[in-house]
Amino acid sequence: MENKNAFWSSILENVRAKMIPFQLAALKDEIPNAEPSHAIRNFEIAAGVAEGEYHGMVFQDSDVGKWIEAAAYSLTQKSDAKLESEIDYIISVMAKAQLADGYLNTYFILKEPDGRRTNLRECHEMYCAGHLIEGAVAYFDATGKREFLDVMTRFADHIYEEFGPGKKAGYPGHPELELALYKLYHATGEAKYARLADLFIDRRGTEPNYLVSENERNKGRYHWGGLDSLEYTQAHKPLREQDRAVGHAVRAMYLYAGAADSALSRNDAELSAALFRLWDNVTKKQMYVTGGFGATRHGEAFAEDYELPNDTVYAETCASVAFVFWARRMLKLKRSGKIADDMERALYNTVLAGSNLNMDRYFYVNPLEALPCISGESPDYKHVLPERPPWFGCACCPPNMARLLLSINDYAYTFADGKLDIHLYVDGTVTRGGTTVTHSGDYPWGGSLNWTIECDSDTDVSVRVPSWSKENTLTVDGTEANIVVNDGYAGFRLSKGAHTVNLSIEIKPRRVYANPKVRADSNCAALMTGPLVYCLEGADNPSPLCALRLADDTALHAEVIREGVLDGMTAIKADGKRLNPRDELYTEEPAESTAQTLTFIPYFAWGNRGRTEMRVWINI
Amino acid sequence: MENKNAFWSSILENVRAKMIPFQLAALKDEIPNAEPSHAIRNFEIAAGVAEGEYHGMVFQDSDVGKWIEAAAYSLTQKSDAKLESEIDYIISVMAKAQLADGYLNTYFILKEPDGRRTNLRECHEMYCAGHLIEGAVAYFDATGKREFLDVMTRFADHIYEEFGPGKKAGYPGHPELELALYKLYHATGEAKYARLADLFIDRRGTEPNYLVSENERNKGRYHWGGLDSLEYTQAHKPLREQDRAVGHAVRAMYLYAGAADSALSRNDAELSAALFRLWDNVTKKQMYVTGGFGATRHGEAFAEDYELPNDTVYAETCASVAFVFWARRMLKLKRSGKIADDMERALYNTVLAGSNLNMDRYFYVNPLEALPCISGESPDYKHVLPERPPWFGCACCPPNMARLLLSINDYAYTFADGKLDIHLYVDGTVTRGGTTVTHSGDYPWGGSLNWTIECDSDTDVSVRVPSWSKENTLTVDGTEANIVVNDGYAGFRLSKGAHTVNLSIEIKPRRVYANPKVRADSNCAALMTGPLVYCLEGADNPSPLCALRLADDTALHAEVIREGVLDGMTAIKADGKRLNPRDELYTEEPAESTAQTLTFIPYFAWGNRGRTEMRVWINI
Repeated sequence: MENKNAFWSSILENVRAKMIPFQLAALKDEIPNAEPSHAIRNFEIAAGVAEGEYHGMVFQDSDVGKWIEAAAYSLTQKSDAKLESEIDYIISVMAKAQLADGYLNTYFILKEPDGRRTNLRECHEMYCAGHLIEGAVAYFDATGKREFLDVMTRFADHIYEEFGPGKKAGYPGHPELELALYKLYHATGEAKYARLADLFIDRRGTEPNYLVSENERNKGRYHWGGLDSLEYTQAHKPLREQDRAVGHAVRAMYLYAGAADSALSRNDAELSAALFRLWDNVTKKQMYVTGGFGATRHGEAFAEDYELPNDTVYAETCASVAFVFWARRMLKLKRSGKIADDMERALYNTVLAGSNLNMDRYFYVNPLEALPCISGESPDYKHVLPERPPWFGCACCPPNMARLLLSINDYAYTFADGKLDIHLYVDGTVTRGGTTVTHSGDYPWGGSLNWTIECDSDTDVSVRVPSWSKENTLTVDGTEANIVVNDGYAGFRLSKGAHTVNLSIEIKPRRVYANPKVRADSNCAALMTGPLVYCLEGADNPSPLCALRLADDTALHAEVIREGVLDGMTAIKADGKRLNPRDELYTEEPAESTAQTLTFIPYFAWGNRGRTEMRVWINI
Repeated sequence: MENKNAFWSSILENVRAKMIPFQLAALKDEIPNAEPSHAIRNFEIAAGVAEGEYHGMVFQDSDVGKWIEAAAYSLTQKSDAKLESEIDYIISVMAKAQLADGYLNTYFILKEPDGRRTNLRECHEMYCAGHLIEGAVAYFDATGKREFLDVMTRFADHIYEEFGPGKKAGYPGHPELELALYKLYHATGEAKYARLADLFIDRRGTEPNYLVSENERNKGRYHWGGLDSLEYTQAHKPLREQDRAVGHAVRAMYLYAGAADSALSRNDAELSAALFRLWDNVTKKQMYVTGGFGATRHGEAFAEDYELPNDTVYAETCASVAFVFWARRMLKLKRSGKIADDMERALYNTVLAGSNLNMDRYFYVNPLEALPCISGESPDYKHVLPERPPWFGCACCPPNMARLLLSINDYAYTFADGKLDIHLYVDGTVTRGGTTVTHSGDYPWGGSLNWTIECDSDTDVSVRVPSWSKENTLTVDGTEANIVVNDGYAGFRLSKGAHTVNLSIEIKPRRVYANPKVRADSNCAALMTGPLVYCLEGADNPSPLCALRLADDTALHAEVIREGVLDGMTAIKADGKRLNPRDELYTEEPAESTAQTLTFIPYFAWGNRGRTEMRVWINI
């Protein structure tokens, strides 16, 4: 965070320099005191280049797919021969591990050779295939090397043979392959991959229910346990009939993302309408202010509408990462300021909080309240770790974060013939087709947003103006423009050539209040600055944080931190009060209070100064 | 509740007329659609007068002991030949079931004849013995019939033989026998029973830990599962070294009650000091405003200090019943207004809420917030039933309530030579020794407390003046007396003869606020009138109740309810507001509100008008 004018480039530099090598080391089981991954070793054993037994989750392969995808994005930004040769080695091993018929999944190859495709509900074969396909497409795009893409095309063909039109009516127990097949379609031009994704989406939840029949067939031979919730696997009803997000949050988000690709590709208004209904439900009734999703650890799932506990929360990092995937695709269906605002909320808060600032420790669960002696300790709070651990046995989140962050420019812009949409403010340069955009500025700490845009034809530019910014000034080529904001975007036309564009938006601390139906946030406010949600930490404020109060009318002061690991970030200071400690449990007089300066730091930076109490929603 | 001047006599009439027969029918498995008890049938099978197999919890016998105790108290208040003959029958069966060596426990007699006394930690033999002893003493006191007392004396002798001084160093895995042995000592004059109780209390938690060794011996042959918490069984350290209540709340309360008997009997200052420390911890850091105890369902246990969730709460009815037992005994160690106030809090709120007004349905768990679609439904809320069910497989609470309510006068007064302490205001007449006290009044709805006291010698009377009553007037024989309140009691001296005493205390709605450390009650108030805690119900107020607000300075109006099942009770009405529903999840403006009359009813009467939302703590 040293350079305030390079928020994203400094993050990306860190991800490339620290996160990518650290995660490779984790996948190679080289991190001391961390849970072993064995993910690369599994491929080596399946390829016959190493000895041993399969180890890890049934979906361990996917971590390698996600990491290669992230590493491939890294290579597009900065060449790295050593990294590339590491990837090439892994790909060569994968190619050796692939069976003659195209099948590739180390769990089934090594542990259950007869079980292939018999347990779609539980065993993640297609989910792993999806992540490997995404890795293969990204690596092909980054290097032009075809080997991995060819391997995964063969596996996709194999799946098509088995589950394509007129074949077995199955679909992934954990959605993900759908959006990967769309990527494969775009990479290869082969429409059958898109059609297979469409089939998976349309079959899901229809009667007779494939997963129910499969569960019957598997009676007594389950991987984890028998079917107890069709919602969990997103197979309770067809997506196009749904209007409420239920079940496993990550499964839901991947499914919605793939379905958005499908709705766009097929111009499917019914499917698209369902996705917008679900968007409304998710973002207006089930989203944490930090852009976290999935309120309950039971099934890592969505809960009841407005039921958003801050302390027993799940809010898996992967759910927010996948929400960003979904959001990006929804923006292709419809350019919408609300969708972009929501996407940015998840990105700047829960996604970024998923990693420590040093990029080598990660959260899986992202609480909005962390409590000493309770979080990570009490039975209902075991999952809410108050500190990021060295690694996870189920390490889905870290490489998911890496691949999203390193491809952030794909989320920042939509390039089309004669059109450019700017959704996010990401410093750096991007060229697509005949258009080159360079962004610089002090965002999210400040609101001075500068672009140079060079286009080889006249271009209609739409730049997002966040809904929370009330005063905005747009300058195009040095001349202040009249801002007309249409569904969250200010539009202007640039002639062929090079231009400078400046947008000044309002970045100042503000309060937000939850819907009165959210009982967990009653009588509380959260502080935000720009897209950033803030929190109180015990490191800066006296415990317990629940005894602190911030009145509705107190001034909020932005103040740059000038020490420690948060150096360069903007804190918010406010004159609040602290209810005085007392002996009695219940009294007839409200507690007396003492003046107390309150210090809030960005939520994404919490948990970087040792184990400490943390709270997003402050009592008012 | 028809007669406002007969709060307790009308409850007792209902308990005798409805609760006692209903519970007998339940124990005889005669309630349609209710979980079968089988408790009496188990004795019949053990006695050889019926055929079949044991059914029920390992502690099923205890329900019969508790019910007989309650029924015996009922007989002292109102003779009932049919009820007495039902009890005599059960006792005759018990006598037949008793083994030649005095042993009596139907689970072990029928299911594990070789397992007797091998699993004190899990199998409740001594707990059941305690409850049967209490029943036997009560029945002897009520009727003068000795059979049951003789049966239980033989069993107590048998236990003494096995675990008395110099014998096996065991103690009950679930405390209860300790206080029962003190009752047996008082009934029989046999000091060895008191000494056995003392031994159990002193051995508990000492090294080498008996329950740990026993657990080792039982490896692989557990009833529920291996030892995972010494706190759960109150065996983590000697009671006299403790200063924080931990583990299973009901176990703790029974232990503390027995220990108070023991401390009094032995004049044991060290043990007494530990009990006062624990009292402070329990009532100042771990008590719900309703007098509920045990914040977590995990181990039905105390949680961290100040960790008092209103929605996932446990607050078992039995824990509050046993707290009253403990309180009564603490008042013998020291007359203390705080202790009596705390006792009354549990009694008028959680204990009374344990039953519906019709006395035939019961709560085991007593939430302070019940939520439609969540309480009783969501995984973390399965235990929080929003309605009282027909009966329980584990039915410890209903007869526990019955025996406490029917012996309420034992909690209201302490009679001693030339001394009378009045702790509670219970309408009706009580005679002990040469003193007869009759109380009448409109309590708890009003504060006009009237006594006639007839004593055969000069008597120092101490009448409790609740800490929440700020304006009090005492009149003795028509003359206003100068009130000097000493540790919560106003003292005066009555000469031999008959006197009238009137105490006027302040009964008006008031707010209470929780300690700022209780995060669940932040920015909330609870309403009370006299000893009664109030709550909002969906039946009277718009949902969601979390969207209602009551300002700190609004007038609270007492208003008598004149319809429905709550007819005759006092409601509290107040001008509050309701935050307006809105579409957005997070906004920069606090929600707007609409004026809303709020209606609060006594907490003990909640859940008598169908399934409805309920909330004790209202946002301010």
